[in-house]
Amino acid sequence: MATINDVAERAGVSVTTVSRVLNNRGYISEKTRKLVYDTMEELNYQPNEIARSLLRKQSNLIGLIVPNVAHPFFAELASAIEFYAYEQGCKLLLCNSQLDPKKEREYIDMMKRHRVDGIIMGSHTLEVEEYTQLNSPVVTIDRKIADLPYVASDNELGGRLAAELLIAKGCKKVAHLCGHLELDLLANLRTTSFEHTMREHGVEFMTLQTSMDVFDQHQYETMISDLLSRHHDIDGIFATSDIIAAFVIKWCHKLGRKIPRDIKIIGYDDVNITSWVSPSITTIKQPITDMGRMAVELVRKQMDGERIEQQNKLRVQLVERETT
Amino acid sequence: MATINDVAERAGVSVTTVSRVLNNRGYISEKTRKLVYDTMEELNYQPNEIARSLLRKQSNLIGLIVPNVAHPFFAELASAIEFYAYEQGCKLLLCNSQLDPKKEREYIDMMKRHRVDGIIMGSHTLEVEEYTQLNSPVVTIDRKIADLPYVASDNELGGRLAAELLIAKGCKKVAHLCGHLELDLLANLRTTSFEHTMREHGVEFMTLQTSMDVFDQHQYETMISDLLSRHHDIDGIFATSDIIAAFVIKWCHKLGRKIPRDIKIIGYDDVNITSWVSPSITTIKQPITDMGRMAVELVRKQMDGERIEQQNKLRVQLVERETT
Repeated sequence: MATINDVAERAGVSVTTVSRVLNNRGYISEKTRKLVYDTMEELNYQPNEIARSLLRKQSNLIGLIVPNVAHPFFAELASAIEFYAYEQGCKLLLCNSQLDPKKEREYIDMMKRHRVDGIIMGSHTLEVEEYTQLNSPVVTIDRKIADLPYVASDNELGGRLAAELLIAKGCKKVAHLCGHLELDLLANLRTTSFEHTMREHGVEFMTLQTSMDVFDQHQYETMISDLLSRHHDIDGIFATSDIIAAFVIKWCHKLGRKIPRDIKIIGYDDVNITSWVSPSITTIKQPITDMGRMAVELVRKQMDGERIEQQNKLRVQLVERETT
Repeated sequence: MATINDVAERAGVSVTTVSRVLNNRGYISEKTRKLVYDTMEELNYQPNEIARSLLRKQSNLIGLIVPNVAHPFFAELASAIEFYAYEQGCKLLLCNSQLDPKKEREYIDMMKRHRVDGIIMGSHTLEVEEYTQLNSPVVTIDRKIADLPYVASDNELGGRLAAELLIAKGCKKVAHLCGHLELDLLANLRTTSFEHTMREHGVEFMTLQTSMDVFDQHQYETMISDLLSRHHDIDGIFATSDIIAAFVIKWCHKLGRKIPRDIKIIGYDDVNITSWVSPSITTIKQPITDMGRMAVELVRKQMDGERIEQQNKLRVQLVERETT
C-alpha cells in the first residue's frame, strides 16, 4: 500500500507538503496541490484516517447506545441517525446495551478511548453520573439527565391526544399499558397526561405497567390475555408502543373481540409495523426521522462550540388507521 | 485529562516504561507493572485507543454494511453481530447502503481509511469487484462473490420445505412472491427449489417478483391485492419474507379470505413480527443469531490467519404457526 513517503517521492515534493495538502493547512500553490492529488490518485494512496484523527483530534465517529437495535423503534431511529451522521461525514458506532449496565459502562469507556466526537444515548439502564462525566458531547433521547441536552417528542401531548380520541369515540372503560414507571423516562409523561385527561372527563380507566425488558413478549401475552379475559367490558386500550398494540390486536382476535366495534386500540411510535398488521394500528406518531436528525445536529453543534438548547421537544401527531 | 506523561511522572518511571506496560511489550517487573496500573487508575488515565490502534495496526472495528437497519431482518442480524463482536472486544460500525452504490462505495473507502479489522457485507447494490480489492477480511451474507467467504442459510432446503408443506396441506394453486431475481443473491435458490418441488408434484403455481426496494410497501400492497382479486382460487402463498407474508394476511382480511381455511401462507426469515401479527405466521426460520455469530467468527479467523471455509451454509427450519 502506498505511503505518504511514496507520494512525496513520486511527486518530487516534501512529506510536509503532502501533509499540508491533505490537511489543507499552510500555503500551497494550486499547481503543487494538483500535482499531489494526481500522484495520490496514480498511486491509489489512502490517507490513514487513524493517523489523521490523531492530528485533527477528531475521530468522525458518533457512538449510539440503544437497548437493542432489534426493537423496531430503535432500528428506525438508528437508521435515521446513520443517515444524518453520514451527511455530516461521520460514521456510527452501534452499541446495544441489552439492559446490561456492565456492557453499557464498557461501551462508554471504549468510546472515550476511541475519542468519539459525540455520544447519542437512547438507553435506559445506566446510572446517570456516568454520562455527566464524559468529555465528549452527549445527547440523550427521551431522557433528562442533569443538564445534558436531550431530544424528545411531546409525550404530554401524545398522552392527551390518545385519551381524547378514545373519549371522542365513546369509550367508557379504558386500559392503559405503559412502560415501567420506575425508569426515569420522559415517556412516563404520556401516562401522567393520559390519566389526567381521563380524570378530567370522568372516564373509568386502569393503568398497567410492563417490565423493563421490551423484548419479553411473554409478559405482553400474559398481561393482555389476563386483562381482556377478566374485564369483558373494556372498550378502549392505549398502549405505549405499537408492538404492545399489535399483541392487543392478537388477543382480541383470539377472544373474538371485534376491532374497532367492541374495542378501540391506540399504539405509540408509528413504526412500520403499524401498517403491516391488520387492522392497521391507529397511533401517536413520534417524528423518528426528525429526532435522529436533531440528535446528530446537537452533537455537531456541541463539537463546533455553538449554543444549543437543552430541551428539544418535537411535535407528535395522531395517525388514525383501522383500530379506532 | 491525564496523559501518558502525567502517569510516568507520578509513578516515577519513563514514558517508555508506561508504554511498554500498556502494550505488554519488553520486560517489565511485576512491581513496576502494578505501580503503573495503580497510577493509571489513580489519575483516571484513559489510554488513547486511536494512538494504540496505530501501534498495533488493529482498530478493533468491524464494519457492517446492510441495505437498511430499519428492515427487521437486518435489524435482528445487526443485533446478533454486535453481540458477538462485543464478545471479541470489537466495536461495530453500522452502514446503511440504502440501495445507493455511491454511498456504499464511500463507506468502503472510509473503512479502508479507518483500517477496520474486517467488513461484513449484507448489501446488494455494489459491483462485486469493489469487495474483492479490499485488504481487510471480508465476509458476505447470503451472497457469493468470487472466492470471498460467505454465510448463508440453506435456501434450497427452505424453498423445498415451503413447497412440501403447502402440498401436504392440500394446496392446488400456489403463488410464490420472491425478491428481484436479477440480483445475484443466494436467496434466489429458494425460488428455484420451490418451483422444482412444485413441478415434481405437478401442482400449479405462479412466481411474482418484487422490486429491489424492500421498503417499497406500496408495491406489496398493489401486487398482493391484484393477485388475490384476479385469482380467487389461489389457496397457498409462499412469500420470501415475513413482511410480505404480513401484507398477504392483511389483504386476505380485507377480501374476506379465511386463513388458513381458504388460503395458507408461509413466510421466510422468522423475524419477531411473525408472532406480533395475527394469525401468527408459519415461516422458514433463518438462524439469524448463528449467522451473526459465524460472520464475526469468520472475520476473526481471517485476522488471525486461520484457515476458513468459503461456504458456510447454516440449516433452516420450518416453524409452523397459525397461517397453515
